[in-house]
Amino acid sequence: MENAAKVRLCVEHPLGQGQTVPLEREQAHYLFGVMRLAEGAAIALFNGQDGEWRAEVTRAGKRGGELTCVEQTKPQGGPADVWLMFAPIKKTRTDFIVEKAAEMGAARICPVQTEFTNAERIRRDRLQAHALEAAEQCGNTYVAEVDDLARLDRMLADWPEGRQLMFCDEALAEDETPAGLKNAPKGPWAILIGPEGGFSEAERARLRALDFAWPVQLGPRILRADTAAVAALTLWQAALGDWQ
Amino acid sequence: MENAAKVRLCVEHPLGQGQTVPLEREQAHYLFGVMRLAEGAAIALFNGQDGEWRAEVTRAGKRGGELTCVEQTKPQGGPADVWLMFAPIKKTRTDFIVEKAAEMGAARICPVQTEFTNAERIRRDRLQAHALEAAEQCGNTYVAEVDDLARLDRMLADWPEGRQLMFCDEALAEDETPAGLKNAPKGPWAILIGPEGGFSEAERARLRALDFAWPVQLGPRILRADTAAVAALTLWQAALGDWQ
Repeated sequence: MENAAKVRLCVEHPLGQGQTVPLEREQAHYLFGVMRLAEGAAIALFNGQDGEWRAEVTRAGKRGGELTCVEQTKPQGGPADVWLMFAPIKKTRTDFIVEKAAEMGAARICPVQTEFTNAERIRRDRLQAHALEAAEQCGNTYVAEVDDLARLDRMLADWPEGRQLMFCDEALAEDETPAGLKNAPKGPWAILIGPEGGFSEAERARLRALDFAWPVQLGPRILRADTAAVAALTLWQAALGDWQ
Repeated sequence: MENAAKVRLCVEHPLGQGQTVPLEREQAHYLFGVMRLAEGAAIALFNGQDGEWRAEVTRAGKRGGELTCVEQTKPQGGPADVWLMFAPIKKTRTDFIVEKAAEMGAARICPVQTEFTNAERIRRDRLQAHALEAAEQCGNTYVAEVDDLARLDRMLADWPEGRQLMFCDEALAEDETPAGLKNAPKGPWAILIGPEGGFSEAERARLRALDFAWPVQLGPRILRADTAAVAALTLWQAALGDWQ
């Protein structure tokens, strides 16, 4: 029986047949100290470009080591071109949103500042590390990019041509039926999750008036932002993304 | 302008026009000590039977108090008849699954023991408190019931007539296309989320053979159980439940 890899790592190094990958001290500590891998053990590697490879530990040391690629186990997959835009909230919930967005296959994760967002700053590096860990765990061959905090109004003013926006609107009037994603075109998209305090009236009016915005309602209940992120990405992936 | 209620409480007391609701010490502490409500303040109440009511604080004391129902603000809603079955994992993730299932409108939350489940016991009362808090927060007029831990094989052996099972199967063969929920009947359902270690071969074979089971795949990535719970409930609510 093939040695099944129990550990999956994202590395910054080319991968290919017979390619060796040197390990840094911290990686060696994790693989050999924490995970107790020995020479000959299998490990899965990806780097965002060369697909997923089964590699073997060919040298295990305390301060370093070496892996050697044996066989490609997955071709490089691209994420569907969908961004998740959300207003950062409390630390733990924000971490969850990033983890969930990465797991659900978002290409880019965009923390946005709305009128009712409290967060003035985020720790981009820490959120990026969460996205990487989620990619290792969920089997992706790419890592979602986490952006710096940006103002929603500026993003909308500078919106890229041809990108559609799924606008998750909690405050539809009772007689309104959201268009949903029926007849929505394929291609680049972004999903915008409302902040916990809701959008301001001015923001809502502006969003509703955009010709690239598709209002979608996520059911009759008020969802927390992390729940809404998963629900919205589920609807999008099932209708337009890689769940079809 | 009407006094908008900032606090929403589930109470065990009949609600109706002019009905008074006595407060226990702990509730009084929360409303008047923590939330700083004064006499005359508005509060939203529900009890799982009489819909949602706007009530006013008619007596605020340190050890108790009284609310009086003013106006019904929502009729009693029933949950769609869907159970969420999942294998308990680490404490925090289990808490999240219960919170998410309640927010996504599950009627009943069933922790199940599978062959690869580690949990021997759960704290049902603690999980029930999470479900109640989620109901207060998301605007439901009912609280999802949390069951005690039950063995999956026994639940399947004793399955209620006419209830369909959405079986979220990570391990479909490559040439298999899951049936999904196309042509699925309305009526009572349950959703089964795979445990983090997967189902055993015997469990999978048994589940696939059940004539009330509908295998559904949640995309190409490996989802954590809490993510899978939200994604599965999204698909179900959109196809058969109260999101239509």
